[in-house]
Amino acid sequence: MKILVANVNTTAKMTDVIAASAQAVAAPGTEIVGITPDFGAESVEGNYESYLAAVAVQEAILTYDGDYDAVIQAGYGEHGREGLQELLSVPVVDITEAAASTAQYLGHRYSVVTTLDRTVPLIEDRLLLAGLSQRCASVRASGLSVLELEEDHDRTVETIVAESVKAVEQDRAEVICLGCGGMAGLEAAVREATGVPVVDGVAAAVTVAESLVRLGLGTSKVRTYAPPRPKHVTRPVASRG
Amino acid sequence: MKILVANVNTTAKMTDVIAASAQAVAAPGTEIVGITPDFGAESVEGNYESYLAAVAVQEAILTYDGDYDAVIQAGYGEHGREGLQELLSVPVVDITEAAASTAQYLGHRYSVVTTLDRTVPLIEDRLLLAGLSQRCASVRASGLSVLELEEDHDRTVETIVAESVKAVEQDRAEVICLGCGGMAGLEAAVREATGVPVVDGVAAAVTVAESLVRLGLGTSKVRTYAPPRPKHVTRPVASRG
Amino acid sequence: MKILVANVNTTAKMTDVIAASAQAVAAPGTEIVGITPDFGAESVEGNYESYLAAVAVQEAILTYDGDYDAVIQAGYGEHGREGLQELLSVPVVDITEAAASTAQYLGHRYSVVTTLDRTVPLIEDRLLLAGLSQRCASVRASGLSVLELEEDHDRTVETIVAESVKAVEQDRAEVICLGCGGMAGLEAAVREATGVPVVDGVAAAVTVAESLVRLGLGTSKVRTYAPPRPKHVTRPVASRG
Amino acid sequence: MKILVANVNTTAKMTDVIAASAQAVAAPGTEIVGITPDFGAESVEGNYESYLAAVAVQEAILTYDGDYDAVIQAGYGEHGREGLQELLSVPVVDITEAAASTAQYLGHRYSVVTTLDRTVPLIEDRLLLAGLSQRCASVRASGLSVLELEEDHDRTVETIVAESVKAVEQDRAEVICLGCGGMAGLEAAVREATGVPVVDGVAAAVTVAESLVRLGLGTSKVRTYAPPRPKHVTRPVASRG
Amino acid sequence: MKILVANVNTTAKMTDVIAASAQAVAAPGTEIVGITPDFGAESVEGNYESYLAAVAVQEAILTYDGDYDAVIQAGYGEHGREGLQELLSVPVVDITEAAASTAQYLGHRYSVVTTLDRTVPLIEDRLLLAGLSQRCASVRASGLSVLELEEDHDRTVETIVAESVKAVEQDRAEVICLGCGGMAGLEAAVREATGVPVVDGVAAAVTVAESLVRLGLGTSKVRTYAPPRPKHVTRPVASRG
Amino acid sequence: MKILVANVNTTAKMTDVIAASAQAVAAPGTEIVGITPDFGAESVEGNYESYLAAVAVQEAILTYDGDYDAVIQAGYGEHGREGLQELLSVPVVDITEAAASTAQYLGHRYSVVTTLDRTVPLIEDRLLLAGLSQRCASVRASGLSVLELEEDHDRTVETIVAESVKAVEQDRAEVICLGCGGMAGLEAAVREATGVPVVDGVAAAVTVAESLVRLGLGTSKVRTYAPPRPKHVTRPVASRG
Repeated sequence: MKILVANVNTTAKMTDVIAASAQAVAAPGTEIVGITPDFGAESVEGNYESYLAAVAVQEAILTYDGDYDAVIQAGYGEHGREGLQELLSVPVVDITEAAASTAQYLGHRYSVVTTLDRTVPLIEDRLLLAGLSQRCASVRASGLSVLELEEDHDRTVETIVAESVKAVEQDRAEVICLGCGGMAGLEAAVREATGVPVVDGVAAAVTVAESLVRLGLGTSKVRTYAPPRPKHVTRPVASRG
Repeated sequence: MKILVANVNTTAKMTDVIAASAQAVAAPGTEIVGITPDFGAESVEGNYESYLAAVAVQEAILTYDGDYDAVIQAGYGEHGREGLQELLSVPVVDITEAAASTAQYLGHRYSVVTTLDRTVPLIEDRLLLAGLSQRCASVRASGLSVLELEEDHDRTVETIVAESVKAVEQDRAEVICLGCGGMAGLEAAVREATGVPVVDGVAAAVTVAESLVRLGLGTSKVRTYAPPRPKHVTRPVASRG
Repeated sequence: MKILVANVNTTAKMTDVIAASAQAVAAPGTEIVGITPDFGAESVEGNYESYLAAVAVQEAILTYDGDYDAVIQAGYGEHGREGLQELLSVPVVDITEAAASTAQYLGHRYSVVTTLDRTVPLIEDRLLLAGLSQRCASVRASGLSVLELEEDHDRTVETIVAESVKAVEQDRAEVICLGCGGMAGLEAAVREATGVPVVDGVAAAVTVAESLVRLGLGTSKVRTYAPPRPKHVTRPVASRG
Repeated sequence: MKILVANVNTTAKMTDVIAASAQAVAAPGTEIVGITPDFGAESVEGNYESYLAAVAVQEAILTYDGDYDAVIQAGYGEHGREGLQELLSVPVVDITEAAASTAQYLGHRYSVVTTLDRTVPLIEDRLLLAGLSQRCASVRASGLSVLELEEDHDRTVETIVAESVKAVEQDRAEVICLGCGGMAGLEAAVREATGVPVVDGVAAAVTVAESLVRLGLGTSKVRTYAPPRPKHVTRPVASRG
Repeated sequence: MKILVANVNTTAKMTDVIAASAQAVAAPGTEIVGITPDFGAESVEGNYESYLAAVAVQEAILTYDGDYDAVIQAGYGEHGREGLQELLSVPVVDITEAAASTAQYLGHRYSVVTTLDRTVPLIEDRLLLAGLSQRCASVRASGLSVLELEEDHDRTVETIVAESVKAVEQDRAEVICLGCGGMAGLEAAVREATGVPVVDGVAAAVTVAESLVRLGLGTSKVRTYAPPRPKHVTRPVASRG
Repeated sequence: MKILVANVNTTAKMTDVIAASAQAVAAPGTEIVGITPDFGAESVEGNYESYLAAVAVQEAILTYDGDYDAVIQAGYGEHGREGLQELLSVPVVDITEAAASTAQYLGHRYSVVTTLDRTVPLIEDRLLLAGLSQRCASVRASGLSVLELEEDHDRTVETIVAESVKAVEQDRAEVICLGCGGMAGLEAAVREATGVPVVDGVAAAVTVAESLVRLGLGTSKVRTYAPPRPKHVTRPVASRG
């Protein structure tokens, strides 16, 4: 089985990290291929960048040369999953939704701990659209940007742990979702500090995608995600310079 | 990995069928063990029988002698998952929720096609509690009882297919969940007739349980599903005669 | 008129207290009969015990020898009301729902003050299923267990009052529901401290049951609560030893 | 115990009918007093008339000379209950809410069968505000006006019964609420035709009011329904001619 | 174009202030006419007074002699808009709804800052009925009464600003609605202190009314807001003395 | 005042039609400038094309050389408004939301009549995110594609009218929103056939944008729509050939 994992930003190094973390949880026989978009932002933290990511990932998948069995969109709270579902009949799994759906098996309510305050509404909106907000206790921002997550590991751990503890104690969360692809690897620290299960979206999405493929299930093509109608489309490419 | 699959009724033959269908989709290395409750109804079609099932399954799991990595409750729309979650730290997966969560990856809205009209509200209630009703287009009854499903295969196929077509055309479902453990095996006929993906709850639950185990995730024990407090409990057993 | 009031735990002394408090508010001519289940926990504080209670109460009612006009299930936030409704055509009243429905006549929003933190989600779930959560300002835990409520009366009063004041001041509740059968008798203290009406579930349920009987209204038998279908059922009994 | 039952229109004959039907279900010792507003419409079928009724009932109650223990507002889907609650510390019961709350004890979902199509949204709005719409299957109009209900009894029975049957069969209602004060007396015919319990709002409200009085419960005065602040108010009276 | 702006209280000076602030934002060619009700309270702060206002405004509009193109009801959180819609085919705009709808164009969530705590539930109820509560972050009370707003300008500014800052920082509001007709003129101070857009309901309602008139849109008369049916109505007038 | 009206597809002729219809309702002194995206589809009917449109419009606005006071996104049910709000401090108005908000002033519930069945879920999703779905009676598809709307005017009128009549009669809509930029001009026919007010999204959006500008209100920049953070972004351009 081959699964494409699409990074939503243009930072190839992040694609590698995400793909590696995906491969680490994949079943034997599952090949993970990381996809980096040709255009967009080096990190995605807001609607403008998120829309760019949606289209850049669409283009990256459309131009990918080779077969594959499923696609994971590895941006937390980002736009775009619906477009991929229209283009493809293989399963498309968004990590925001995979994390939340997984968390719902584990506790009465879950919280998401993410990066900047400005991305909280994006995540809330995606959960609302996905029908997964009823059991969401809170989406909390750590105040760290996507790129800052990497800069000072100790500060990152401390900050994410502190916010997770608040989610459990104040918001009554019983499960924590790590709300950024770049937070993979923090599970143990958060679990230890809070005593609750911790879900990484990329890892969850890998097992969901594998499961759907194994069950022979793909995207429904009868209405919302029917293939685009034949028509003239001018496609975008990365600008030069 | 060993997964217990608990039938909710006392008909051992059904346990065998369910366990076999679970084993059929399980990953290599996953052992499925069917559990039959000691008391309750020969088929579960309503609240009285469903509550009996909840407690009978609790007892069956408590008295199971051996290790296991996860438990699946194989009743559609039944009570009881929360009790098992309290008793266990391994994952507990209800097939109603596994089916709905799986369906949500595949289309904009899903419907459940079940047995008798009287079980529709039970399924609706379980989806409501699970936070999975926003994207549920409808729960439709075929009018066939659990035991009738087995009697006349052609009638069963025809009836379930007809109701599924209505769900897609009238209720705008884009995915169908088969709303009874005893409907496993109808996927192909329904998919062919409707053109939409069809989810069997037992199969979905097996992959969910395997995924959770592989990710090292278990039930959160901090509040709702903390272990029962030490106290005097008089446990029930099957009556004689 | 005769009303059965079913305690959800096996502590007969509590049945007596509950029955006495029910009798105290009953209309002249209403006879209250307390029912103690044969199996289950000495106090109910969680899902495992609550499911046991649901089935134990079902059995206790099924085996009750005599006529009666209504049944009250006297557990706050417990499972089981639906099963009794299926078995009976006389009215079945759950104290959680009677308290909330009563509170809704008295103020814009109400809060429930209950025992342990772990029972909060159970109460929230029951209110959600009953369609009574929109006007629920909060469900607050006092931290006292069911049995501790009896141990030190002054501490109990002080703790429940303190939590009720928070509900009124912080959560904007205008009515307080006492969220445990064992809290009957605290109404005056809470009302005095908060200035808001205080509803005891057992008392509310008695008047609701009397009203339904007087109006000639019973459980609807057309769909959800139709009698169980004829089939083989193995019933549970209390284990020995 | 004395309960004022306020008719919402100026037709004194209707007040008598409503008061008589209230007295018929009242407990021994309960005195029902019918109140007819001084101004407003001869029958209330829409927002303009309903707002008039709200204020006319407020005035009628304010100017009522004598003691009483509770007030029932006997208009289905009408404005005004909140104003009375502010003016009074005794319980105020709206028949729309009493009917719905009572119905919720009896079945999984209830429907309201009312008069004209134009009053359906008023009833829906009142149920929404009261937090009682989640379990409302439908509000159905019979097409008969308030005054037509009286004209041809056979037509009235036939029409209300027909609409009730649709509510049960098409909307999955398990209980019917008669959505107009003027429908009292149709319970038996509707119950017989549908097989489901039928709730008359006035009757339900009488038992609710009696229950609240007996429990010593009145309107919460801490926030929403605190007494009006002292200030200059010019009160309305009926115009002459 | 001529727009009637109905004050909800009997204080003619307030009518003048509201009309002047409406005229200040009106387009060239728009004439604003202030309407003062004949009866009701000198300031409206609760349900009793709000219902009086609803009817008094209805009467004032019905007896207004002259043509007009739209009506604005200038009470925040008050009853009555539906009655006017029934009486008129020109547009009727409530400032509570105009403010909220306008705020929704400007940010992800909005808060309302109003006068007394007791009016918060009235505003919440009106937003709920209007379908505008999903994106409402909070309704906050300043503790100042309507008349106090005028007494000490500095205190008013300070208090409203302080509450607005809490709405933005604690409740995550991105837009503030000034929740009282008497708060017009505070926009600049609140905007400066919070950095977010500030919406005055009267100003918003003027542009909405002008827009509807320009687009040739009026109240739908097919069902809810059909004209009152012909029948005998006794209308209210102000009492003397 | 200058307002940019962004077409969402690459068909310049449609831009002209939309701009002309916008100019026709604009106030004296308002200049409308049509914007055609450089890439994307010739008509937008689904998620893939809608995401392309979102980014193409973002780019078109970013590269627009000149001042302007507001932006209208003239696609019904399309993605993208949030991205523009982040990029700009002037108001951004989506026609889907302007139509629904306008409709809500006119009747109790509104319906949207749109083009293809596949676009219904997109519109539903946008209304859900915008907090405007509570009063939406239905979104109905006419079965005509965007381009077919232009082909046979009589068929278009007949089809849209027929669907609108169903919305009013079956779904209880009291207002109709024309759910496609290309439906401007059908208002009179639909109004005549249904008797209800008909809202064209572009016209509504023009008056909303003008109103916001006149009130000095722009997009809140404190959280969700704060400007993108400074970072490296590779922007897309139209591909050649």
